[in-house]
Amino acid sequence: MEKQIIFEGKEKRIYSADGEDRIIIHYKDMTTAFGGIKQALLKGKGKYSCRISAMLFSALEKEGIRTHFLSLLSDREQLCLRLEPIPLQLVVRNRIAGSTAKMLGVENGLRIPNTLLEFRYNCDELGDPMINEDHAVALGIATYDELSQMRAIALKTDEILKELYHRAGIELIDFKLEFARDADGCLRISDELSPDNSRLWDEADGRVLDKDRFRFDMSEVCSSYREVMERLEKTIKQ
Amino acid sequence: MEKQIIFEGKEKRIYSADGEDRIIIHYKDMTTAFGGIKQALLKGKGKYSCRISAMLFSALEKEGIRTHFLSLLSDREQLCLRLEPIPLQLVVRNRIAGSTAKMLGVENGLRIPNTLLEFRYNCDELGDPMINEDHAVALGIATYDELSQMRAIALKTDEILKELYHRAGIELIDFKLEFARDADGCLRISDELSPDNSRLWDEADGRVLDKDRFRFDMSEVCSSYREVMERLEKTIKQ
Repeated sequence: MEKQIIFEGKEKRIYSADGEDRIIIHYKDMTTAFGGIKQALLKGKGKYSCRISAMLFSALEKEGIRTHFLSLLSDREQLCLRLEPIPLQLVVRNRIAGSTAKMLGVENGLRIPNTLLEFRYNCDELGDPMINEDHAVALGIATYDELSQMRAIALKTDEILKELYHRAGIELIDFKLEFARDADGCLRISDELSPDNSRLWDEADGRVLDKDRFRFDMSEVCSSYREVMERLEKTIKQ
Repeated sequence: MEKQIIFEGKEKRIYSADGEDRIIIHYKDMTTAFGGIKQALLKGKGKYSCRISAMLFSALEKEGIRTHFLSLLSDREQLCLRLEPIPLQLVVRNRIAGSTAKMLGVENGLRIPNTLLEFRYNCDELGDPMINEDHAVALGIATYDELSQMRAIALKTDEILKELYHRAGIELIDFKLEFARDADGCLRISDELSPDNSRLWDEADGRVLDKDRFRFDMSEVCSSYREVMERLEKTIKQ
């Protein structure tokens, strides 16, 4: 059966797979930032993001967290469940950095006493505005029960990923989760988990190892992604 | 004892009162919108806002909701408790209107199945950004317990004010609450409750009776505020 493109985005391409409940997600090298205003083709970026994402999804599944990930098909392709997407992002912050630091008028990387969860409405035309649970329910995006489940999954995911990254000498500053409903109506983490949607700082010297390198012209974007991949691989093998 | 000005804002003046735990709040006719960009002196506005606010605070106190309000001293002056302010706004929405309708890309006045609560960080320089409970705790503004109390007070306040306005033939679309801590550390509603920080639509014909008339140059600002005051007075006397 020939693979048919179901959806082509800037950074990913989605194909149909054998069986109606599965898709193949292809990670491209195209890299975008600031809502697509900044774009570049960074050779190898898709491969590193795909492999990091696959490793992290596998690690989460082992700990009982359901994701859309089934298996790694190649360096750039994952077999995943075809799910009903939920137009929400849930940002998990262990420190306050980036746009939220600016919004609150605090220093980039402010240490906080709690773990900060931030829902965003996944809508390009509106600029993915930050919303809260009441907005999500008012818009019919999710129920209060689902939102509460998302919060619990996000906090557990944070614990697992923080520890895994820490063992690789990397501090997990923040990351973005997306969720989808499976055939039974259960929530699963979808999208990806990579330096594309996480802030990762080297624990030893504070070096930025994520997409901020691309956003703010810090060079060595791909070699940083590769470094994250290699350090995670070494950690997981141990 | 001569009254001393403690604070002078655009729309209010605050004086010291007899006893260190009390202040006098004077409502001015100056009217501002869009973070102070739009300003005008509207004769009588301060008087109407002050009297509406006093009526509503009294109605809430009768129902067991603590506020900073003690008594009406004159048409423009209230004796209030001197409290420790909390730099938060809590917007309560029975329909989605104004900036939130724009942010979510929905029609102004969208009916919703839930009551929507929205925290904002009270900070002029940052444009009073919308935040959630995690941000408020991270910034040390309030505890989770206090935020949860604010939500409960806001929902009860909404029930009381919605009913009162409904008896006056007015639909309470949304309103903004501010909170402060008293000497015992208990939360009390502070600031004001008037057409200045509420959206009020005539139930019969949908006529706007609040500050949106000023924001969007709809004329008859003061006569609308006076109408709200007179309709509430008549309702409360019954």
